[in-house]
Amino acid sequence: MLYCEKCGQKVADEALLWRCECGGALACDDTGFNFNPNPKLPGIWRYASSLPVACPETPVTLGEGMTPLAECIWDYGRGKAAVKCKFDALNPTGSYKDRGIAVQITRLKELGLKKLVEDSSGNAGAAMAAYSAAAGIECDIFVPAYTSEGKCVQIAAYGANLRRIPGTRETTTIAAEKAAESVYYASHNWNPYFPQGIKTYAFEIFEQAAGVAPDNIIVPAGQGSLVNGAWKGFTEIARSGKSSATPRIFGVQSANCAPLYEAWAHGEDKPRVIDKKDTIAEGIASASPVHGEAVLKTVRESGGSFVAVSEKEIWESFTRLASMGFYVEPTSAAAFAGLTTLLREGTIKPDEYTVVFLSGSGLKATDKIMQLRANPPE
Amino acid sequence: MLYCEKCGQKVADEALLWRCECGGALACDDTGFNFNPNPKLPGIWRYASSLPVACPETPVTLGEGMTPLAECIWDYGRGKAAVKCKFDALNPTGSYKDRGIAVQITRLKELGLKKLVEDSSGNAGAAMAAYSAAAGIECDIFVPAYTSEGKCVQIAAYGANLRRIPGTRETTTIAAEKAAESVYYASHNWNPYFPQGIKTYAFEIFEQAAGVAPDNIIVPAGQGSLVNGAWKGFTEIARSGKSSATPRIFGVQSANCAPLYEAWAHGEDKPRVIDKKDTIAEGIASASPVHGEAVLKTVRESGGSFVAVSEKEIWESFTRLASMGFYVEPTSAAAFAGLTTLLREGTIKPDEYTVVFLSGSGLKATDKIMQLRANPPE
Repeated sequence: MLYCEKCGQKVADEALLWRCECGGALACDDTGFNFNPNPKLPGIWRYASSLPVACPETPVTLGEGMTPLAECIWDYGRGKAAVKCKFDALNPTGSYKDRGIAVQITRLKELGLKKLVEDSSGNAGAAMAAYSAAAGIECDIFVPAYTSEGKCVQIAAYGANLRRIPGTRETTTIAAEKAAESVYYASHNWNPYFPQGIKTYAFEIFEQAAGVAPDNIIVPAGQGSLVNGAWKGFTEIARSGKSSATPRIFGVQSANCAPLYEAWAHGEDKPRVIDKKDTIAEGIASASPVHGEAVLKTVRESGGSFVAVSEKEIWESFTRLASMGFYVEPTSAAAFAGLTTLLREGTIKPDEYTVVFLSGSGLKATDKIMQLRANPPE
Repeated sequence: MLYCEKCGQKVADEALLWRCECGGALACDDTGFNFNPNPKLPGIWRYASSLPVACPETPVTLGEGMTPLAECIWDYGRGKAAVKCKFDALNPTGSYKDRGIAVQITRLKELGLKKLVEDSSGNAGAAMAAYSAAAGIECDIFVPAYTSEGKCVQIAAYGANLRRIPGTRETTTIAAEKAAESVYYASHNWNPYFPQGIKTYAFEIFEQAAGVAPDNIIVPAGQGSLVNGAWKGFTEIARSGKSSATPRIFGVQSANCAPLYEAWAHGEDKPRVIDKKDTIAEGIASASPVHGEAVLKTVRESGGSFVAVSEKEIWESFTRLASMGFYVEPTSAAAFAGLTTLLREGTIKPDEYTVVFLSGSGLKATDKIMQLRANPPE
């Protein structure tokens, strides 16, 4: 059963609405979910008791989840800090989006869906194309024309209908919503099942550290699904009585597109209307996050904050990560640029237990990385 | 302690020789190793009791191993077969080579190595660059000029000195061996530690299927390290008394470069001297496999065989895999092309338990995949 986050209206899954009639976003009622891992099931499906699917034993799966929690010594310029990386680029399509899309597509298949439309800056589009292919669901994927070549080729190879839309990320969304007048709009940003899959990364971090919650989790934040996922996961663990601690959650934005950071810096409750500029962190170039208000509230409740980082800082973090063996897309490097800021300003102490999230593979951004190596941001 | 596979001479690890003075390849004496997983250690390091390193608690690691064993229904034209994919593209640098290189670099670091040279068709080079970076070892990587752009950018990003050599894979090896006159030659094809890491994939397949050995394992075969790895792993499991069954092992080669298949087809013990042609399966384009004789012997002992597949068959398998959600490099697709052949000729039955190995990520081969989509092999 779903409910509207805005008006509270209850909606049956079977209605296959992408949002409430009032315009609000739909969410799963997850109050009955209980963190209770089943080690016999693979990947994210070991958390079946926390997922909104009828038959978790027969999911649409490509092997998502149980990505490494790797160790890393980070030099932040004034010292070094031992942190852990949740290396979620190592999911089947190369990004963390697989967690959410696997749950979303499994549920949509159960509900009998045959065709969908999605818009994405690239990673969610690749995930949607892959899982739709695995489920036998036809899909149209709209991406901004500036999306990395690697992501576009990948989406097309899965057999999806790829539509490259000139203009901003927001223009792409408008085009997809137009197409969705006749086809189910599976937008991961609106979808109620997607966040339930994303939260599994928090469960894994908890289990991989033998049942210890981190002091801090640092994630790249565009729409803020990783912020909400961490909070959802750790509050569910707390509710199950397995841990009383929850981490502080830090969302990192590109200074060139920072509606959440700007709101935070001004003590506001809603994302700021911003004048968006280009950023190499294409995965978090979201000017109008759908759940922005909830994301701001979550970060506040967790005791964390938002950070904005420059293009130069993102690129420097990319090169430093690569020189340590972690090859990620620039969006992921933004999280480490944020770590540097948080360590320097003393918000995070080097001896705390901090997990930094690596969201997508560098292999998806070969063309961008070549350009950036030739012409680094100044 | 190492020994020469050719003359039997014992060699101390500390000598840091890349091969025996007689020209033979060195191997680890692994008779004392015992399959005895330690679930408290992450990834491949849970098999510490089977690895030739002094301190497996402090490895050079990026989170390698414990990749998914995903399910897949394969249409082979005359029916369908349920098989499992070992999705080893989901290792830190995007290929299975990380298993071997992680062990190799961990051991070389323990031995005090500061600089190395390696040659590779791309995947091992990327792995070597990444783990050398993580270990603080300087490295020069020689690759054939035809290597995918994605692999080259990745190798350079890790901070390795990338050398692109015009000509064949073999020309690249000659250039590397020349450079190795003054620097340690870490060639994964010759290295004695590398195969010990590769075998961990067999351990994982065994554990992920709750202690059941497959009837068949199908791997792409160039040098044959996956053939040897499977055999080494499953015989070690058998020796430990945990299972009496060992799988039949099938090595798949491109018909355009098939020295092992040609030898097999002619009932010979040594790789054939072949007239090598270009293949889209660049990862198995090895005309003169270093351990070829041992690889042929292993396949025979296991009860398996070799298969050669055409460019067209490899590409068709690539597109079919992608249409099921598995986006791999063409080399990996060769293994599924081999599965089709083996099922059609009745060597493998659809109801047997078969595991097919997916060795590398499609994200590494964006440029090649674009070209192939525009001009598919005929």
